Amino acid sequence: MSARFQSDPAFLSIEEAARLLRRRELSPVDLVDSALARIERSSSRLNVFLTVLAQQARKQAQQAEREIRRGKVRSPLHGIPVSLKDNFWTRGIRTTAGSKILSDFVPERDSDVAKSLSRAGAILLGKTNMHEFAYGITGENPHYGSSRNPWEPKRITGGSSGGSAVAVATGMGCASVGTDTGGSIRVPAALCGIVGLKPTIGLVSIAGVVPLSLSFDHAGPLARGVTDACIMLEAIAGKYPRGKARPNFRTLLKNLPRKFRLGWPKDFFFERINPEVRAAIEKAANGFEALGARIEEVPMPQLAESVDRATNLVVAEASYYHESQGYYPSRSEDYGDDVRGHLEWGHNMRAVDYLRGIESRRKVEQDLAAALEKVDAILAPASPIPAPRIGESQLRVAGERETTVRAELLRMTRPANLTGLPAISIPCGFTSDGLPIGLQLIGQRWGEAQLLAIALAYEEATDWHTRHPQLS
Amino acid sequence: MSARFQSDPAFLSIEEAARLLRRRELSPVDLVDSALARIERSSSRLNVFLTVLAQQARKQAQQAEREIRRGKVRSPLHGIPVSLKDNFWTRGIRTTAGSKILSDFVPERDSDVAKSLSRAGAILLGKTNMHEFAYGITGENPHYGSSRNPWEPKRITGGSSGGSAVAVATGMGCASVGTDTGGSIRVPAALCGIVGLKPTIGLVSIAGVVPLSLSFDHAGPLARGVTDACIMLEAIAGKYPRGKARPNFRTLLKNLPRKFRLGWPKDFFFERINPEVRAAIEKAANGFEALGARIEEVPMPQLAESVDRATNLVVAEASYYHESQGYYPSRSEDYGDDVRGHLEWGHNMRAVDYLRGIESRRKVEQDLAAALEKVDAILAPASPIPAPRIGESQLRVAGERETTVRAELLRMTRPANLTGLPAISIPCGFTSDGLPIGLQLIGQRWGEAQLLAIALAYEEATDWHTRHPQLS
Repeated sequence: MSARFQSDPAFLSIEEAARLLRRRELSPVDLVDSALARIERSSSRLNVFLTVLAQQARKQAQQAEREIRRGKVRSPLHGIPVSLKDNFWTRGIRTTAGSKILSDFVPERDSDVAKSLSRAGAILLGKTNMHEFAYGITGENPHYGSSRNPWEPKRITGGSSGGSAVAVATGMGCASVGTDTGGSIRVPAALCGIVGLKPTIGLVSIAGVVPLSLSFDHAGPLARGVTDACIMLEAIAGKYPRGKARPNFRTLLKNLPRKFRLGWPKDFFFERINPEVRAAIEKAANGFEALGARIEEVPMPQLAESVDRATNLVVAEASYYHESQGYYPSRSEDYGDDVRGHLEWGHNMRAVDYLRGIESRRKVEQDLAAALEKVDAILAPASPIPAPRIGESQLRVAGERETTVRAELLRMTRPANLTGLPAISIPCGFTSDGLPIGLQLIGQRWGEAQLLAIALAYEEATDWHTRHPQLS
Repeated sequence: MSARFQSDPAFLSIEEAARLLRRRELSPVDLVDSALARIERSSSRLNVFLTVLAQQARKQAQQAEREIRRGKVRSPLHGIPVSLKDNFWTRGIRTTAGSKILSDFVPERDSDVAKSLSRAGAILLGKTNMHEFAYGITGENPHYGSSRNPWEPKRITGGSSGGSAVAVATGMGCASVGTDTGGSIRVPAALCGIVGLKPTIGLVSIAGVVPLSLSFDHAGPLARGVTDACIMLEAIAGKYPRGKARPNFRTLLKNLPRKFRLGWPKDFFFERINPEVRAAIEKAANGFEALGARIEEVPMPQLAESVDRATNLVVAEASYYHESQGYYPSRSEDYGDDVRGHLEWGHNMRAVDYLRGIESRRKVEQDLAAALEKVDAILAPASPIPAPRIGESQLRVAGERETTVRAELLRMTRPANLTGLPAISIPCGFTSDGLPIGLQLIGQRWGEAQLLAIALAYEEATDWHTRHPQLS
């Protein structure tokens, strides 16, 4: 009998937890119980989970314990408790997508991501709260309650993967998988102080995800550290396109880059930004330089005029989906006001405006592609502002004209959705009010391995990721 | 001094003419003069050319004669008179696209096709009449007069490349290049009794073509025989996509296929069709069997519901172009009624209907791809009806419900535009009224070489292509 791990294992990294599990210094049952205890204590108050699978999770933990004891370790996720955003189909388990319309929907099949996690031996704690139909960036939800920021519960978590971000930030499981159509992984990760990765479009299957906008929907991990995100990605990633060999994301991290080039956007990304956020990103840039990175300015001349217009594509596709399912407009009254408003916008959008969106997207692609020919990744905020208050819809950033919380929260992350480029948000500081700040790195197409390595180099040189919110 | 070619050279094949030119039995000047004489005699009556370049053509013919005399033969098109549809930009030469809006437009650059023809040494006789902005399938034109069918001048030529089809059918040059967004090469070729080829999308550059709908615009040759079409294609074709070697279309024809499989569509293509057209296609199928082809039925279960809906894509893109150029709606009164009506349709189209069109196009692709996995080409009419009368807008086909001439003329050709598959129309008979009937063959992607070989095998076994209309 080996020595038992004595402390609360809730904030162990996946690598540490896996090592303890293999050495039998920790039981999957204890790990799951610790997460479930946290869920029990705080999930309702913070509106984190829509469905908790306590019994099933304990049973799976017992089975994992038996398998590991027999030396049958399926993967680094074997016995590790995780959660899934509630828009991933889970066989026999209610999948609401945060909506009233799907409040009783129980899928007959698993999404590809649910299958991959199960195959890897991960233990599913439950399904997390989200912005209705993933169609919003705040995580506010009129049907199930708005998820609350664990650093300051009067504030939003960001969304749409808000519940996933809180679960990870508060030790309700080691990691989660969310979806990101305009920023829905990176924004809540930034606002809750964790890591969120949106891989290259197509790398993680979205089969079995309730769609928002099929051309822009991505699935990816939320985790407390870059290595954990890597391990999650390794479990859920599909193949690279023809001819391209997919790296092993996990082993790759053993060789961190010594020399790399980062782009500092001259336009768009730093144009309207909270001063504390800007200061944190500038400090991170200095940190990167100290690590040997060369930082050079990269122009983004077309983003300001193009990103908003290209958003037409996302909005039209969302309305198309809801109309083709017969949800909208026939069940208009079952949507929250904001989602109904977006659907109406897409419903009335003209085809020529959609085509204008296609042209605008091309310009976004041009700007980012030109920059990424010169640098390995682009530095940017994940959000220009820290978490706003729940219910707040208008604001002024840096004293400029009033805009909407929605527009500001989406502004930094949309470009990577419109282009399908991989992008990660990692913790890089706190405001004077103690709210987390996220640094976004946008990488080259199919370059998530390099992106993760760059992110890890920064993480290893800082300790932002080691701070966790106190649950009252 | 070699023996001179004595007869009128107007209907020589390009191959024959090129041989005579090389042997100096025929002068390019005589060849051009013969074409110009026909243009002078009948172009105004039939509304064939919008611009005739008599002087320039004669000068180029003299230059070609000198070059060929010095043994400097640039290509099989050297010294061969051809025409261009008036939507191809020609440097310093008015390019109206059949419209009032561009009636004074003189491009500063050549289209890629104009450049290729010039490089090959072809002699440009002039720019041919067309449906306004290529946005119509009849060839009727309120600004420049409707092109008239040389087999029966009260009837339409089909469009939009109507002038090109008449020019080729009546010996006003050896060949022409047109564009085809919904059938605009194949339909006038069929209705005027010549060969019209729409290659795989992307094979012939549309740079410098006044666009109709950029995703569906194709350029391709109209000619009096398959070999001539081949020679033209060889001159204007670009590269095949990465890794794929482009065949030499001309030399390939020396090895005609002995065994090939043709698909006879069970659905859609023969559902509403003039009985004489059907009989001609059936006879052509028998002819193919006699040549060693195996004919098998191929289902097209989704076309009937999908082709019309997918047309939304074409209509929206056209409106987008005209709006982004500032032509529509600001210059509404300068369009013909039909084109204005289409532009208004696209202007008002909803984005979700555009997206429905994308889904429908996918179904069209599925049906054709499934068939072309089993067969080398699909047999179909190029048009379900022979040429209607000018001004006729409604009709009944085979006693069924009344439909529009426009809808019927586009029905058979649209699938190949929606999918980008190569398709050719070749002469396969005449109605009892003496109107030409066109056989359409739809081939595999990047399979135009095989398609041309199959078409030539048929042409060599028949003599439809040797009949020419009598000019009064």
